[in-house]
Amino acid sequence: MTRIPNCQGIVLLLLLLFSHIVSITLTLAFSVAVTANNGNTSKPNIIIMLMDDMGWGDLGVFGNPAMETPNLDRMAAEGMIFPNFYTANPLCSPSRAALLTGRLPIRNGFYTSNAHARNAYTPQYIVEGISNTEILLPKMLHKAGYVSKIVGKWHLGHRASFLPLKHGFHEWFGSPNCHFGPFNDLDRPNIPVYDGAQMVGRYYEEFPIDKKTGESNLTQLYLQHALEFINRQAVTGTPFFLYWAPDATHAPVYASRRFLGTSQRGIYGDAVRELDQAVGALLERLHSLDLHSNSLVFFTSDNGAALISGPKGGSNGPFLCGKETTFEGGMREPAIAWWPSHIPPGRVNHQLATVMDLFTTSLVLAGVTPPSSTPLDGIDLTPALLHTRTWDRCICAFVCLDGCFILMTRNSWQEFHQGINFCPAQEVHGVTTHNQTDHTQHPILFHLGRDPGEKYPIR
Amino acid sequence: MTRIPNCQGIVLLLLLLFSHIVSITLTLAFSVAVTANNGNTSKPNIIIMLMDDMGWGDLGVFGNPAMETPNLDRMAAEGMIFPNFYTANPLCSPSRAALLTGRLPIRNGFYTSNAHARNAYTPQYIVEGISNTEILLPKMLHKAGYVSKIVGKWHLGHRASFLPLKHGFHEWFGSPNCHFGPFNDLDRPNIPVYDGAQMVGRYYEEFPIDKKTGESNLTQLYLQHALEFINRQAVTGTPFFLYWAPDATHAPVYASRRFLGTSQRGIYGDAVRELDQAVGALLERLHSLDLHSNSLVFFTSDNGAALISGPKGGSNGPFLCGKETTFEGGMREPAIAWWPSHIPPGRVNHQLATVMDLFTTSLVLAGVTPPSSTPLDGIDLTPALLHTRTWDRCICAFVCLDGCFILMTRNSWQEFHQGINFCPAQEVHGVTTHNQTDHTQHPILFHLGRDPGEKYPIR
Repeated sequence: MTRIPNCQGIVLLLLLLFSHIVSITLTLAFSVAVTANNGNTSKPNIIIMLMDDMGWGDLGVFGNPAMETPNLDRMAAEGMIFPNFYTANPLCSPSRAALLTGRLPIRNGFYTSNAHARNAYTPQYIVEGISNTEILLPKMLHKAGYVSKIVGKWHLGHRASFLPLKHGFHEWFGSPNCHFGPFNDLDRPNIPVYDGAQMVGRYYEEFPIDKKTGESNLTQLYLQHALEFINRQAVTGTPFFLYWAPDATHAPVYASRRFLGTSQRGIYGDAVRELDQAVGALLERLHSLDLHSNSLVFFTSDNGAALISGPKGGSNGPFLCGKETTFEGGMREPAIAWWPSHIPPGRVNHQLATVMDLFTTSLVLAGVTPPSSTPLDGIDLTPALLHTRTWDRCICAFVCLDGCFILMTRNSWQEFHQGINFCPAQEVHGVTTHNQTDHTQHPILFHLGRDPGEKYPIR
Repeated sequence: MTRIPNCQGIVLLLLLLFSHIVSITLTLAFSVAVTANNGNTSKPNIIIMLMDDMGWGDLGVFGNPAMETPNLDRMAAEGMIFPNFYTANPLCSPSRAALLTGRLPIRNGFYTSNAHARNAYTPQYIVEGISNTEILLPKMLHKAGYVSKIVGKWHLGHRASFLPLKHGFHEWFGSPNCHFGPFNDLDRPNIPVYDGAQMVGRYYEEFPIDKKTGESNLTQLYLQHALEFINRQAVTGTPFFLYWAPDATHAPVYASRRFLGTSQRGIYGDAVRELDQAVGALLERLHSLDLHSNSLVFFTSDNGAALISGPKGGSNGPFLCGKETTFEGGMREPAIAWWPSHIPPGRVNHQLATVMDLFTTSLVLAGVTPPSSTPLDGIDLTPALLHTRTWDRCICAFVCLDGCFILMTRNSWQEFHQGINFCPAQEVHGVTTHNQTDHTQHPILFHLGRDPGEKYPIR
């Protein structure tokens, strides 16, 4: 992976998130007096729940007709939803890098000009990873005494120097990569699973995934490791950061046996139901340990649903295209913030926000001064979270140092004819494309308030 | 309008709602013990709120990113939502006829084989209307002593013999037709507005609509007439049926001055916000008059959002196409049932249901035996409403007496090239079409659980 000094080679261009959307704060379900800022907001526990390829339209509260997420819907009713919340890149690795560094991919290095991997995806055969010059969230939070654990997928490099414990996390249960496989163990071994610095097995071996039935108990393992960490922190009283990153909704999707066949949507829906129940169990544990009023929990996803999976994948609701495109379907994410007695319940906040803001917001809550050595792209969301405020803001998905913006569709005619379609049944004249076109002089602009589905370019 | 004995002339064919969707009842927001059937369910007041061209995806609770409907979202949290609720026809007149007769358009006469008006739309220049042989809901409810009022749009014929007071309603404030216009008053007068049997003015004259600004106070008038009726019934104690049918979300959309410019979505969103606030005011009035536990309120729409209006119209969320097509976007409707202390709060019920069921359900609640002279297509939904039950069911959008099913797209190449597009940016290969094709031998089938967007035909 190479850091790109500028983006002269990049040809597709779009002012993606330019529009400042009219900001209205509405009550979601109940008119409740603002109870923000009751009690101490100093050094709360921070839990970021990052789903994998789960789309905006997969949650009941965001309009999935299957309504498979009663626990997330309750979390929304008890907390605040952000309908205009964005990732920084519609692919796993750069999205996760942006969240943990608070910086755009073009700054943190998870970006290349190579057409195949220009989104800086880090599969098993890419040997690079997160730079040592990047300062990750757990490292910053440690300055305020936080203990940090990552449970689930890392995806910022699989070689020893790139792993989570080298970048500020104190604990890890999970894997450096996606659960692709099984591999033949000759030219390519199966993906390893770690507990701390120790490799404890591999997917399809010690950690089985039945690709025929879709059965795997991995979500239950990720739940148990998270619960066990919370239990321990409750005893010590040390503030903690839990980065919970299960990957059951990433293809090949999986669910535990008792969830298989329980949804309307096949294994994908079963996986959603299991993750939803795990979220419910985690919030319930915070309650039972009396940590709820001192724990900010933020639920979101790394990118939009992978429409290339067809009906076996997730839903981006009314939005255009999905994962691997910078249309709304790839970039807009479900987002719920929950912090009883601090975040007023039942609120909808239209503040434009991104995963990078979770970095800055966490530092503010922990009382840590952001690093001065590197520019940050995330901002402090506490006025929105604690005081239901909104303000004008201009953000963009990709920014190069000379100020250009990039549209990524990747759907070449060659891929399309091979059956790879990132926008199935969503060909919008003059918008979706199979050819790379330079839009520098004529960016495609949408009024996302009136046209969130990006069907009607306004220029 | 002619009753069609069979549908030999009809060429597009689809088993539309064949799939029985796996039924799961989930809590929406709060886990609340079932409190159904506390108290008397005999002769409750019945309020049906029927929106005009409002889509499934227009409500916050059904996933609109603008989240403009806090009152409807609260109604959902206090009541039960039906994500699999359908109209009987994706156009105003036949949909409304089906609701009020409990019968499919092909039975109640709101159907023709004429290509232009084959959906039996009754604009100003059509002189036919609802048949005298049809028995409408208010007429049946009168047998149990109900007093009935329609507020808003009728659309079942504008000549004297077809008007609401001739078909069982005791009171009416509203119009026989859409608020199209202004007309030139020479070959075509403006559409009249009635108060009871009395014509009290016309749209664009005594009841102004400013087509430039979108300003009209009609929704406020419809709200006031509904509130006044409820007030009167509260005094008399007589059970009542209120059919509240405002049309602000039908093009040309309008809103009162204080709502103009308040939404993210232009005048359409302003209209949604005003209707949402009116719903809130109506529910609040039921509470303040202590009628809430004796009033079933059902909120839905006559057909999907009119995508022909482009970004000036509503949203069908993740569903295909919209009004004037029998795809999910035209047929699936937002649906919320509310009846405190009878319908358990915060529930999602996946029961497959239709507007025609509101006829039969209302009769059951009123204790009226359904008419034996004509076959009904609606069924009793009280097991779903009061006991959160679901059951298998096969319904269809159009049924002819010889058992055929019809897909209606109406998007001929001619219309398409004229700029009329019922499925903008949603061309699905082998599904959407610009030619009438006979699918009798090979119906297009979808698994609506896995593929609610109808992108992947399973045969």
